[in-house]
Parts: sequence; C-alpha cells; structure tokens
Amino acid sequence: MTHLQALADAIGARNVLRDPPDVAPYAVDWRGAYRGAPLAVLRPGTVEEVSAAVRACAAEGVAVVPAGGRTGLCGGAVVPENGPPAVVLSLERLNRIRDVDARDFSLVAEAGCVVQQVQEAATAVDRLFPLSWGAQGSAQVGGALSTNAGGIRTIRWGNARDLVLGLEVVLPDGRVLNDLRRVRKDNSGYALRHLFLGGEGTLGVITAAALRLVPALRRVETAFAAVPSPDTALSLLSRVLGSGAEVIAFELILRRCMEIVDRFGQRTRMPMALDSPWYVMVEIAAAHPAVPLRAMLEDTLAAAMEVGECTDAVLAENEEHRAAFWRIREDYPDCVRQAGPAISTDTAVPVSAVPAFLGRVEQELAARWPEGRMVAVGHAGDGNMHVGLLAPEGTPREDWVARAAGAEAVVNAVAVDLGGTFSAEHGIGQSKRHAMATHKDPVALDVMRAVKAAIDPANLMNPGKMLP
Amino acid sequence: MTHLQALADAIGARNVLRDPPDVAPYAVDWRGAYRGAPLAVLRPGTVEEVSAAVRACAAEGVAVVPAGGRTGLCGGAVVPENGPPAVVLSLERLNRIRDVDARDFSLVAEAGCVVQQVQEAATAVDRLFPLSWGAQGSAQVGGALSTNAGGIRTIRWGNARDLVLGLEVVLPDGRVLNDLRRVRKDNSGYALRHLFLGGEGTLGVITAAALRLVPALRRVETAFAAVPSPDTALSLLSRVLGSGAEVIAFELILRRCMEIVDRFGQRTRMPMALDSPWYVMVEIAAAHPAVPLRAMLEDTLAAAMEVGECTDAVLAENEEHRAAFWRIREDYPDCVRQAGPAISTDTAVPVSAVPAFLGRVEQELAARWPEGRMVAVGHAGDGNMHVGLLAPEGTPREDWVARAAGAEAVVNAVAVDLGGTFSAEHGIGQSKRHAMATHKDPVALDVMRAVKAAIDPANLMNPGKMLP
Repeated sequence: MTHLQALADAIGARNVLRDPPDVAPYAVDWRGAYRGAPLAVLRPGTVEEVSAAVRACAAEGVAVVPAGGRTGLCGGAVVPENGPPAVVLSLERLNRIRDVDARDFSLVAEAGCVVQQVQEAATAVDRLFPLSWGAQGSAQVGGALSTNAGGIRTIRWGNARDLVLGLEVVLPDGRVLNDLRRVRKDNSGYALRHLFLGGEGTLGVITAAALRLVPALRRVETAFAAVPSPDTALSLLSRVLGSGAEVIAFELILRRCMEIVDRFGQRTRMPMALDSPWYVMVEIAAAHPAVPLRAMLEDTLAAAMEVGECTDAVLAENEEHRAAFWRIREDYPDCVRQAGPAISTDTAVPVSAVPAFLGRVEQELAARWPEGRMVAVGHAGDGNMHVGLLAPEGTPREDWVARAAGAEAVVNAVAVDLGGTFSAEHGIGQSKRHAMATHKDPVALDVMRAVKAAIDPANLMNPGKMLP
Repeated sequence: MTHLQALADAIGARNVLRDPPDVAPYAVDWRGAYRGAPLAVLRPGTVEEVSAAVRACAAEGVAVVPAGGRTGLCGGAVVPENGPPAVVLSLERLNRIRDVDARDFSLVAEAGCVVQQVQEAATAVDRLFPLSWGAQGSAQVGGALSTNAGGIRTIRWGNARDLVLGLEVVLPDGRVLNDLRRVRKDNSGYALRHLFLGGEGTLGVITAAALRLVPALRRVETAFAAVPSPDTALSLLSRVLGSGAEVIAFELILRRCMEIVDRFGQRTRMPMALDSPWYVMVEIAAAHPAVPLRAMLEDTLAAAMEVGECTDAVLAENEEHRAAFWRIREDYPDCVRQAGPAISTDTAVPVSAVPAFLGRVEQELAARWPEGRMVAVGHAGDGNMHVGLLAPEGTPREDWVARAAGAEAVVNAVAVDLGGTFSAEHGIGQSKRHAMATHKDPVALDVMRAVKAAIDPANLMNPGKMLP
C-alpha cells in the first residue's frame, strides 16, 4: 500500500507496526467496549517525525487517530468501525521531560510522558503537579490534555487545561504550531491552545506541553465522614471551606458503592460501619506547617456532627491509613465492574444543585427500572457525579444494555435541565456523540463544526469522534 | 441612512445615539490616542436587543465595535480610522447581576456591570471576586473578559479567563450562543468560550458571564521591601512562596518609578527612603484566622534581609497604611504620564527570566537612547513587567515618538527571545497589530485567521483589531 511506504519513509519502517500481535493492543480500548483495526500503528519518536507522519497521511488521505496511554473511557483513541482508512498515531515514544524550572514553577513534558512521571519530576524539585486520578500510572500527558482530564484535585487546582502554560501541536497539514511558552500571561491573539486542550485530537496532535507546578504540600489531613444526605454533604463542604482550610478533595459516595468495594475490593477495609446512606471523603492541605490542619478538621467535623451534617467521622492516623482511604475510592471502578453490568454516566451540575440532581435521578431511575440498583460516586465539590444503574445480580450484559441503555439519557437530561452538562470529565469520544446530538446547543455545534472545518478541512484528524 | 432605520427598529430610536455631543465620548479612547467616528452609538438594553442590533448590522454590512467601560489601552473599543462604516455597540445598559449563589461560589453578571459592582456583589455574600486592577471602578465585565484582563491578583487566581465558568455571546450573525452554565467541569466539545475570552470582540459580543467566586480573605498582610536587584526580588518571591504563604500580589518597581510617584502623586507618601535600586510590594493572605500571617511575613523578610535578598522592609500597620501602599502602585500610571512622553510596553517572560529580561532591556535601551529614562513597574510574580522609555525633561511628545518609537520593538524582541510575549495583559487592539505581524508565529496567525473567517466570514466584528 503506497501510503504505508510513505509513512515508512517518514518515520522508519520499524516504527510502522503492522503485525497483528503488535497492532492488537491499539485496536481495542481498555474496557473492551470499542474495537477498530488501523491500517498500521505509527510510533514516531520526535515532533519532526510526528509532523512528517501527519503530512504523509494528509497527502494520502489517511485518517489519523492519536493515542496515548489509552486509558480513556469513551473510545476516543480507537479507530471507529466503518470509518475511513486510518492509522493509530501513538505518542508513547515522545516521553522526555524536556525541562524542569523550579523557580518558575513549570516544566515541559512531551505528550508520551506518563502523568505519574510528571508528578515525580515535580516532586524531585519540591514542587507539586496536581493533576491526579486513578489511571495516572498509565495515562499520558497528551491524552490527559486532549481530553482535559479532571480527577480528584480539580476542586483546588482545576482541570488539565488550567495547568497548561503552552502547547506544541502538529496541525492536520503537518505544520507545527509552536506555542510552548512558559508565560503566565499572554494576550497576543486568540487562546488557540484551548481548542486543542479537550479537542480529543480532532484538530491536531499535541506533542508537548509547558505545565504549571505549584508549591509542594507540607501537610495533608484526610477524613471519612458518614453523612445523612447529599444536602448535608454540601453543608459540610461549605463548613470546611468556611474554616479556611484548603480543600484539595471532596468525594461523595453512596452506601451501595461502599458495600461494593467492601465485597469486591482486594486490598480494602472500610473506615467505619456501613450504616449511613452516604459517605464523604474530604482532604485538606496546607503549604505552611504552622497551619493547625488536624485541629481545623477535627473541630470542623465535631461542629458538623453537632448539627447533624455528619453522623460519624474518622481521620486518617498516618500515611498508610490515608492510602487505605484512597484505595476505597480508587478501587471502586474495578469493583463495580465485578458487581455486574451497569449503565454509567459522567455529568456535572452547579455544586449547589447536586442534591436536587441526585434526588431527581434516583426517582426517575427507580420509576423506570425498579429492578436496577443505582450507584453514585463523584467529585461533589465540583458538582461532578458519576451515577450508574447496576443490573440485578446475574443479569447478562447484553440483556441489561438492551433493557436499561435509556438510563444514560435520563440522567443526562436531569443534569442539563439543572444547568449542567452530560460530559464533565471523560469527554465525548465515540460513546457520547449521541448525547452531543441530543443535548448540546445547536448553535454551539454549528460553531464547533465551523472551527473543525477551518482547521481540519479534510476531516482526517480523529474522524468519527466528538462531533455528532 | 437605511441601516440606521433598521437599527432604530431593532432597539428603539432613543438607544441609537447620533448627536455629536452624545457620540463624542465613544469616538476616542481614554488616553486620547485613538479616534474614530461611528455612524452611531447603539445602547441595547437586553441580549435580545444586542442580537437584533447585530443582526441588523450584518444585514446592512455595517461593522460592529463593542464597547464597555472603554478603559482599554490599545484602542480596541474605538472605530478605526479609514475603516469600513461602523457603529459602536455599548453594553453599558446590560448592567444587571442576574444571580448570586454563595453556596456555589458563583454569580452571573451582564457585560455592562462594572467590575467593582461584581466585587461588591461577591463581598455582600462573604465571597471574593478576585479580578482587580486600577480601572476596576470604570471597567466593565464584557471588556474585562474580551481582553482577558490581568491585574494585581493573577499570581494567585489567574487572569479573567480563569474566573469564567460560562458565557452568553451574540455571534456575528446575531444568533445567541448560550453557554452560561455554572459547571466547573464540562468536556462536551471544544471550549468555545476561550475564543471569545480575550477575543477582543472580533468573534462576537459577550453579553453575560457566569463568574467564579472564592472564599473571602480573613487576613491580609502587605509589605514594601527595598531589594538590590530583580534577581534578589525573585529569590524573595521564592522565599515567601516557600514559607507557605498564599501570595496574592508581588509587584516589582524601579526606583525611578517610586521617585515619579513621589513627585507627581497627589495622595501618596513613600514607605521608606528611596535609596534602593528596586522595590517590591508583596501581599499575602489567608482564609483561616489561625494562620500566623504577620509572623510569617516578618520572619520571611527578616531571613531575606540576613542574606541580602532585601535591605529594608516595612509592613503595613493597618488598613489605611495598606491603602497608602497600594496608592503608590495605582497612581503610577497617571504620575508617569505627567512625567513626560514615554514609549510603553506590556511584556511577559517566564518568571525565572525576569532578571535577564530587565538586564538586557536596560542595556539595549541605554545603548540606543542614552538620553531616555527607563521606567519599569510590573507584576513580577507573573513575569509581566511594564517597561517604558521616558523622554528627557521637556521633550515634546511628537519629537519623542518620532525618535524613540523603536524602543517598543526592542523590548518586545527581548521578551520574545526569552520565550515570552509582547502582549501580556493589555491585548492587541489597534496599538499592537504591528507587533503581531512582527513577532507572532506565522502558523498561529494562519490558524487565527482561519478561525476568524469561520466565525465572522464577513469580517464585521470589530474589524481592524487584533489580527494584523
């Protein structure tokens, strides 16, 4: 095939994978939900090679599907079935930290760097790279930025886009947009980088980024609390914020989800008896050792208990204890998969609307699927809850999907009705394109299509993703 | 004129200003540097009227120049000379705070709200809206967002764009893009709002915004310090950050600028003898009263003095004293204008490059304009310095502009060479289009032009601004 020759010329034959065993891992997403066979898998090693590869694909009319750690949940890094001929462009070999500047609180990382590698490079100079979530040991920078990853720290430091100072991007025609500056202020024209951040590779390929670092945390305190309801959980959040604490995580967990981790978790133990309808995991931090962090949290929780905002609370006694708390949260996705087939969602509403959201969703799901078991875990401090509908014990996946697939639309509709979004942190990829068609403002879709056509007129960058 | 009739039909004849005395204030920028006569000044009162007005202009092929508080420094809100027929669209009547939600830490403000009005609405519910700079008493939200305003708090809370949760925008064809959500996470497609934030009205008209609030500050401490050099100033910054303090302002001021304020300031008194080459104004804050803020700052400054990072320091003793410190910084722009004609700049470099930047700039300016007097004041904590070249006493403005206009290009070139930008916080407008042509990456300019053509194909939105 002529285009494969052109690609071999561009990046070297040994970086163009074609043998089925080599290609297989790139032909399916990690959940096994999406499959698609690429013409080949390209593994360029430099931005120049990425540029040459993309240019060659453009010349041959071959579509490009950028791929990083491939931990995404929406099928964004997989070649779509029945799509145009496409290659997977893996950034894994661009894995250098190009520069670390502690005084500037910044570093420059290539797209193939694993997120944890960036965290470690920051720690090595007594700084913190705050982006953090379960898959950080496999997820790569390029994917995290292209999907504007969220996670457990966004309540304090924002999403991935908020941690980016500058980008290097290979455009659909192969040209390099070099905006890899480390400046904190730049009003020289449109903020183009925000198109590629969260653009899911549909406008170009992110090859490197200048990332913001923050001062290392000197002290952290973590607590699990039993709360009567999402509303009291929010009152507790206001109380912790009002105490002056720097809240760096605030997770809300439905009892059923705790029970699922208790049953299926390998390394987990529950922090307290599971006799409360909801649980909260709150973490506060301080960069200054003089801040009486533990006393602040103890006093706040005691005051909250007096007025019934929480009914029980346990503070982590040490790092090991703290890690055990976090394992409950981090193991949940695996555990719920073992609990049976589930319809899952990724919505966000204004923080103050979380109680109304959960109340309406529970009602509407129970009315239509009384046999289903609602699960709900999320970053309540961001208004971002992951509600799911779990099948009755022993239901085959196909049956449940056939019966309960509509649950996603129900949850999304409630979120949008409350001024929220049907896609908070996972992105659109393939799995939420139908939701884009249903819920996204048509005017916004028109503008997005105009932008896409302006930057990728041949529609060769990750086609069949994001835009409905 | 037929189009004026169409506009009168759209928003009411009395909201279409045509009498010269009514139009005059809108025909010149506040520095008096840019003048341009609009066909009329439109003062719509609702988003529907803005939409109708823009649609009417589109139908008639009349250009639209959006205007807010008109405090900009780059001529962005003035009709360009020798441009196409244009109206000024003033948002001043859209001045309602639509909603304040303390629990959600957000509010929704219309474009015509004065920035200070938003600050006060936040304070009324024990919250802080951190965007702050000298013109906040006149600048309006729409202008602040369209220019991605910076100011004195960006070191802690970022620029204007970082404080926006959602936008309502009237597109060039009159359609309303309603993305006025208050969610903290939304990955449903391209982050379109970031095109309009800092877009200087060239892609549409911002009519309202959902804005982020933060917890009110419980304690603030402010100090003036004499520092031997920009390098020691940065060491001092690292030291304050390292102390765990929440730094909410870090301003670097050249002695000559202090002297200018001392000479021309009406209400100012110097915090200390002016015998140091540079001065720093640092402000730290805490949301928790238990944080030993004053001791932190005293200890940090004492330690800095021991190693020569600063040679003298004065802490504000009370609110009045603190206000007096800030007047020095805030009165500087007026004072320097009284000191004579000056070539001014608005650059940013990586924070760690500030000393090299100032060193090279001082050298190159002295070599080419030995008679000029360099001035330098800025947000060193963001790498954003405002360097100027002041004429010798008594030089007429025209002479100095003719002789020293090249100074801007010199300063810009050094900033860009150090990985910085020639436009940090003021924007491009009319005054920096030549710098865009000289310094901006041609690939970035191509992408910007493609985006502009896609969203405003008739080039009717603020033509002659930003893009070279």
